[in-house]
Amino acid sequence: MISKNQIKLLQSLKIKKYRLQHNYFIAEGPKLAQEIIHSDLTVTQVFALESWLKNNARLLVEQDIKYESVSEKELGRISQLKTPNLLLLQIEIPPYKEYKKHKGYALLLDRINDPGNLGTIIRIADWFGIEDIILSEGCADPFNAKTVQSSMGSIARVHLYSEDLEKVCSESDYPIYAADLSGEDISLTTFSENGLLIIGSESHGIDGSLLALATEKIKINGSGKAESLNAAIATGIICHRLHPVLGK
Amino acid sequence: MISKNQIKLLQSLKIKKYRLQHNYFIAEGPKLAQEIIHSDLTVTQVFALESWLKNNARLLVEQDIKYESVSEKELGRISQLKTPNLLLLQIEIPPYKEYKKHKGYALLLDRINDPGNLGTIIRIADWFGIEDIILSEGCADPFNAKTVQSSMGSIARVHLYSEDLEKVCSESDYPIYAADLSGEDISLTTFSENGLLIIGSESHGIDGSLLALATEKIKINGSGKAESLNAAIATGIICHRLHPVLGK
Repeated sequence: MISKNQIKLLQSLKIKKYRLQHNYFIAEGPKLAQEIIHSDLTVTQVFALESWLKNNARLLVEQDIKYESVSEKELGRISQLKTPNLLLLQIEIPPYKEYKKHKGYALLLDRINDPGNLGTIIRIADWFGIEDIILSEGCADPFNAKTVQSSMGSIARVHLYSEDLEKVCSESDYPIYAADLSGEDISLTTFSENGLLIIGSESHGIDGSLLALATEKIKINGSGKAESLNAAIATGIICHRLHPVLGK
Repeated sequence: MISKNQIKLLQSLKIKKYRLQHNYFIAEGPKLAQEIIHSDLTVTQVFALESWLKNNARLLVEQDIKYESVSEKELGRISQLKTPNLLLLQIEIPPYKEYKKHKGYALLLDRINDPGNLGTIIRIADWFGIEDIILSEGCADPFNAKTVQSSMGSIARVHLYSEDLEKVCSESDYPIYAADLSGEDISLTTFSENGLLIIGSESHGIDGSLLALATEKIKINGSGKAESLNAAIATGIICHRLHPVLGK
């Protein structure tokens, strides 16, 4: 049984303002749950169908996580998915830490405002082993349900920062690569062992004064007729190119 | 002014059954409109705000396309977007042609059932110059509004086929590349000048008996912890690898 107030609280978390106010976000489904429960994130409560709890309540007890059995109807009311998926987690939003430069690569996202794209990019970074993702103002909120779901659990593993990207770039002595249509063919780029990679929004590209700080502009060539590539696809291709360096 | 019956017809096109019954699909927004109006697709009618028609009605007249001025409220009723975007096109669904093997590459999609992913993949193919996209049963309907929108107009340029992928593969004497986690590192793959590329669904991969027909399985290596890559991201990376061959 879930109280009216709890339902109201969980429903309010659809909206960023209320996520910030309550400091919670939600994640749904058994796969995401496994990833998050075993991560550093703090799960404050789980709302699950009996069918899931039957085999998994023990895991929650071990991890000292409160849980509540809910009916399908109740889950439908609190879920943000079209098809609710067995359980919903209420999770504390971790505070942003201050970004400290270190070896390897960091991904700098300039106004990536599509929540699904942001989640997909987080998943790409996690696949290729880029741990630090720095978000500019104007990026989608990473704790938006769509971002959380499309990150497929990667949101629990990467380190997210919210910083002034120009400041980060001007304080860095590593090469700064920027995806830009005026750049050189990425197939010709030799990536250094450490660096920053800037990806801009699909509609606006990278902000001019930020782009001016880039040491190398890179472009993905195509032979077809589409005008552009989706920002997440571009990130995937560049990270793949970076992979030999990231693997070190 | 738009009639009640027209509104009802346009609204029904959200559902595949009615798209097939009426043989229409819709596309929205000025950018997509430009691409589609200049393509081989047959636009049967345009419903647009006066503010758009003011500068663009001439284009419609030149192309002999019927149009109707609508109010913002009317556009809101027929739009499938959260934020309606100036105009909506009613377009004839082109019939699938029979796939005929020819030089270059064809992209074979096995049960890509997410409409947004399908649209993004169509856009990738168009960017890299792969014109033929063959859809298996179980793929999302390419004339779903989400697919149309996320293809960003590329749906008007590529050639879509609906075929038995096993049949296509068994009749081909070109190499068949399949994205599969058991494959070899794609960085080591040498792609032939002509070929077929199979991408499977994220949840099910490539069907076993189809995969058995592949001549080379390829994998995208990562150094991180995510379990998998989104199917569209994988397609983007493989097409980028194919680019030197596609450019010929």
